Amino acid sequence: MNLLFTSSGRRTQLIKYFKQELGNEGRIIVADYNSTAPTLYIADKGYIVSSIDNSNYLNEIKEICTKEDITGIIATIDPELSLLAKEKEEFNNLGVQVIISDYDIVEMCFDKYSMFEFLKNNGFNTPKTYANLDDFTKALYRNKIDFPVFVKPRKGSSSIGINKVSTLEELKILMKYNTDLIVQQYMQGQEYGVDLYVDIISKDVISIFLKKKLSMRGGETDKAVSVKNDKLFNMILDFIKKLKVVGPVDIDVFEIDGEFYISEVNPRFGGGYLIAYECGENFPKYILNNLKGIINTSHIGKYEEDIYMMRHDIVTIKKRCELLQ
Amino acid sequence: MNLLFTSSGRRTQLIKYFKQELGNEGRIIVADYNSTAPTLYIADKGYIVSSIDNSNYLNEIKEICTKEDITGIIATIDPELSLLAKEKEEFNNLGVQVIISDYDIVEMCFDKYSMFEFLKNNGFNTPKTYANLDDFTKALYRNKIDFPVFVKPRKGSSSIGINKVSTLEELKILMKYNTDLIVQQYMQGQEYGVDLYVDIISKDVISIFLKKKLSMRGGETDKAVSVKNDKLFNMILDFIKKLKVVGPVDIDVFEIDGEFYISEVNPRFGGGYLIAYECGENFPKYILNNLKGIINTSHIGKYEEDIYMMRHDIVTIKKRCELLQ
Repeated sequence: MNLLFTSSGRRTQLIKYFKQELGNEGRIIVADYNSTAPTLYIADKGYIVSSIDNSNYLNEIKEICTKEDITGIIATIDPELSLLAKEKEEFNNLGVQVIISDYDIVEMCFDKYSMFEFLKNNGFNTPKTYANLDDFTKALYRNKIDFPVFVKPRKGSSSIGINKVSTLEELKILMKYNTDLIVQQYMQGQEYGVDLYVDIISKDVISIFLKKKLSMRGGETDKAVSVKNDKLFNMILDFIKKLKVVGPVDIDVFEIDGEFYISEVNPRFGGGYLIAYECGENFPKYILNNLKGIINTSHIGKYEEDIYMMRHDIVTIKKRCELLQ
Repeated sequence: MNLLFTSSGRRTQLIKYFKQELGNEGRIIVADYNSTAPTLYIADKGYIVSSIDNSNYLNEIKEICTKEDITGIIATIDPELSLLAKEKEEFNNLGVQVIISDYDIVEMCFDKYSMFEFLKNNGFNTPKTYANLDDFTKALYRNKIDFPVFVKPRKGSSSIGINKVSTLEELKILMKYNTDLIVQQYMQGQEYGVDLYVDIISKDVISIFLKKKLSMRGGETDKAVSVKNDKLFNMILDFIKKLKVVGPVDIDVFEIDGEFYISEVNPRFGGGYLIAYECGENFPKYILNNLKGIINTSHIGKYEEDIYMMRHDIVTIKKRCELLQ
């Protein structure tokens, strides 16, 4: 059984976990448009492909699937999820399972305002969010929101383009010169990262891993510690009954005065998933099981608390002539 | 011979290079205020100390020096350089050499406007820089500068607080709500990182390593390729005749239409030094030589071109009970 990771980038540690889990059962293939993506040199085989906005991109991925006898595709960056989710059936016809939630769900998760509405309509706590300056100003005058606020792209990844804004004057300028921004309540509280796995066959949540975020770097969790919390476990279980995601999902949550607020949902491996694996929440194994037709059994809350993760850098060095073309 | 790294943080790869170079000749000791600094678990011994703005901090460092029989101290974060540079003599009296340039030089490097004036007065190309809104506005009306511009803290590290600004309206707001900002010409060109070593005994530049920056992450060079350029080598040699730095230095340079502009000078190991080491520019060895009283001989331009560096993450995992106290 061979797996393909698209836009694999710098996720070398995730690739290593999959290689470890797969053992001699198959090969890990990766594709990236950039010849300096370090995963290209760690996988069993790396392919340089076009950028995801190139019209030939999907054909190139399909060609790799056929050539390498791929069973499952895993995508790790937000802009690619919708692209592949839309083509699920076509990949299925090639005998390839795309490990991504359905297109409509992926699109909603990527659109922060749509997700806010979904959360609100289903009764979940979430930071107050405004799609435009008018709506925000009205709420401000009715004392429903106050500064500081976060201004961020309605559709955006990691921490790109996120600003903390303290005055209406600043906010007006920012919204004037940048389109498609949303205004969000500034959450001052403990941030949690939730890594969960929804079985692709049974659609049941079989793993929920909670980590307190201790520090961030480039929009990703740099340091974290494993924790357990029944209230949050139950909230996530309720939430996933409403949101029909499958596979690995990453959710950001704030805790303020004992209440949990869901702030973001990414239907893919989170950058901070590494600690969950190290604590025994083995999503690579769950994926391999699902691809073999095996239903995973629930494993919720079985990990150890008080395990600390610290990320740091290593380097891969290559001569120009050793780079993939 | 034992070395102490202060505020060692996440520089695990640098620590590993020093351990490799030192071999059985001595031990690498590190100190950090944060028990989740990954270097604490990679060095021969790690100490948890107070934060650098605590009045007892220097005493704690001195105690470690005595207890561990330290020969040399290496600091890797900007705010600490001045602190230790000021105490050089006192450390010398304890038999400890602080591998940092003199206090005045360090202070000037950390103050982006002072460095701009120094560069301009000595005839080096550098981005146009304005210490306040008035000076900038005057220059704008005389057509000496145009938007976009960079707004950044006069004294600041990495990319914290740096904004690209496209209109006077935005700029006025930003400068109104934030003190101590400077306005800098937006440089659109190829960025280079220069890692150089000035022999602490002879004061001669003995190594200059040039890398083209290919991508950045969290204000540090994430991907780079080694290059050589005689014009830039000579410019750096001229510059260091004027600026009396010693030890490892990291300089940021832009190339626009074949001209080089010095934009920043950090009198310490740069975050992207790793590629220089991998290409044979062995600063750990130069430091050990200097500490032994050996003068290093020039090694300029002896490295290989077209070597690519790609950084990526690994994780260190510890139980709470395994964390240093």
